[in-house]
Amino acid sequence: MTDIVNSKQVQDLLDTAAGINQSGGNPRVKSIMRDLLEGLMTTIEKHDISEDEFWVALKFLQDGVGEFGLIAPGVGIEHFLDLHMDAKDAEAGLEGGTPRTIEGPLYVAGAPLIEGDLSKTNDVNLTDDPDDTETMVMSGRITGPDGEQVKDAIMHVWHANSKGFYSHFDPTGTQSPFNNRRRIKLGEDGRYSFHSKMPCGYAVPPGGSADQLMKVLGRHGNRPAHVHFFIEAPGYRTLTTQINFGDDPHAHDDFAFGTREGLLPVPDRSSGSSEIHFDFKLQRAKSDGDQSFSKRARASA
Amino acid sequence: MTDIVNSKQVQDLLDTAAGINQSGGNPRVKSIMRDLLEGLMTTIEKHDISEDEFWVALKFLQDGVGEFGLIAPGVGIEHFLDLHMDAKDAEAGLEGGTPRTIEGPLYVAGAPLIEGDLSKTNDVNLTDDPDDTETMVMSGRITGPDGEQVKDAIMHVWHANSKGFYSHFDPTGTQSPFNNRRRIKLGEDGRYSFHSKMPCGYAVPPGGSADQLMKVLGRHGNRPAHVHFFIEAPGYRTLTTQINFGDDPHAHDDFAFGTREGLLPVPDRSSGSSEIHFDFKLQRAKSDGDQSFSKRARASA
Repeated sequence: MTDIVNSKQVQDLLDTAAGINQSGGNPRVKSIMRDLLEGLMTTIEKHDISEDEFWVALKFLQDGVGEFGLIAPGVGIEHFLDLHMDAKDAEAGLEGGTPRTIEGPLYVAGAPLIEGDLSKTNDVNLTDDPDDTETMVMSGRITGPDGEQVKDAIMHVWHANSKGFYSHFDPTGTQSPFNNRRRIKLGEDGRYSFHSKMPCGYAVPPGGSADQLMKVLGRHGNRPAHVHFFIEAPGYRTLTTQINFGDDPHAHDDFAFGTREGLLPVPDRSSGSSEIHFDFKLQRAKSDGDQSFSKRARASA
Repeated sequence: MTDIVNSKQVQDLLDTAAGINQSGGNPRVKSIMRDLLEGLMTTIEKHDISEDEFWVALKFLQDGVGEFGLIAPGVGIEHFLDLHMDAKDAEAGLEGGTPRTIEGPLYVAGAPLIEGDLSKTNDVNLTDDPDDTETMVMSGRITGPDGEQVKDAIMHVWHANSKGFYSHFDPTGTQSPFNNRRRIKLGEDGRYSFHSKMPCGYAVPPGGSADQLMKVLGRHGNRPAHVHFFIEAPGYRTLTTQINFGDDPHAHDDFAFGTREGLLPVPDRSSGSSEIHFDFKLQRAKSDGDQSFSKRARASA
């Protein structure tokens, strides 16, 4: 096997390509870029990747650009970002609270902000679709790390319909833009309650880039049914999470690695609808940045 | 600094994400994917890359999809593939001949195949543009490793015009589809001669993704003037190369790392036109694959 990555020629190439030996530019980006390039070159050399393979891979990336938001969680990188943040939190003594998990690519900004203060209303309806089947009722409360009431929280909820499609991204075109998407404004006591239709798990689009990638890796592209949340409240760290259902066949085999212990309530289906009780525990904000969303590009409607 | 990449949890995640513990799929792709993911995770951890930074980078990749063909050479990866192939050749005792260098993203399949046997014609004209300025005359011969005549070669030539634009990719829309692009059919003796207009060096498109990347790395995005070649001949290895001009201000400072020793003829400008003499030496083909082009996606017209 050749070993040219460690040669002076290639090390010089890396310094030049990443701009290390140039003034100007962003030193952090340069340093990261050098490591990424060296890692890629090391992999090319280790596996003796041919020109043909490289260009086929690049073309795959180009063709897959519309599904990067599925591929990033599908290869575990989005989950790894969570593990990395968890590890940093642990080092900083910030453990506890409801686990974060991946956002996924399907949030849409601008969902209706509706009254959800349970001293003023009994319940919130998320769905615009009267024909959907099984009803889901979810309720609980939001507290701080010591169990204290969290007031004036906003709970962003979004989930798929019973066919596994999200509004705004539904290829059948049958959903209103914000079906199963709401921002719920809570009251003084942090209690919430909403009903909707039971979501269904889904798979990556057949024949798409994520599907092709999963097949070549010998994997499936299925997610268990789940409900996404952002929860923000003054003085608390914004939480990005989702619940999966503990009795879903893919509950412990999510292609996107979004399932986590502590996020797997089992619905009570005894009454005809699926009832889920789930309490969220937020961490306190330590900085302004803790109270905002990640700077991820998101759809809006 | 956290060190979770080497934890059992993340190593298991890598095995699962790359499908290592699944039957089915392609074992080579799985193994490469695992290394690429581990490298990316290691870089995320080493540089403490934030969620925000990750998503900004992913968005940059998505926005830059149309310029991957410029970014790959711009960060030195396309040149590295050449160095890797050179090292493998050296191990196999296949040194010598005209150096290969990067193809770049601007070849267009289907250029006119024209008679260039110098026993039948004096010279070949590449340009359709009567208004272009300085004339380039290039000539020489193609031999094998022992200097023997190479017969029935086809020389694919493509280059920019005097404004630095390639036909088929010219934003001004002023060139015919195959201006400065020909496939020249040579005769028994391997001699060639063509004239054209002197190409100009160029920079990556201002404001595009490659330009943005070069700026953040503190680099320029300029290439010296150059002429691209594929040379194929029965029994010989297909050569992908280009010449730069030794007197170009960017001759030794090519953003795409395409310039190589042995590919830097200095034009003789004494006669009013730019005359370049350059001989190509091919290697003998050792396998059928040696006589084909890389399986890169290419434009066609």
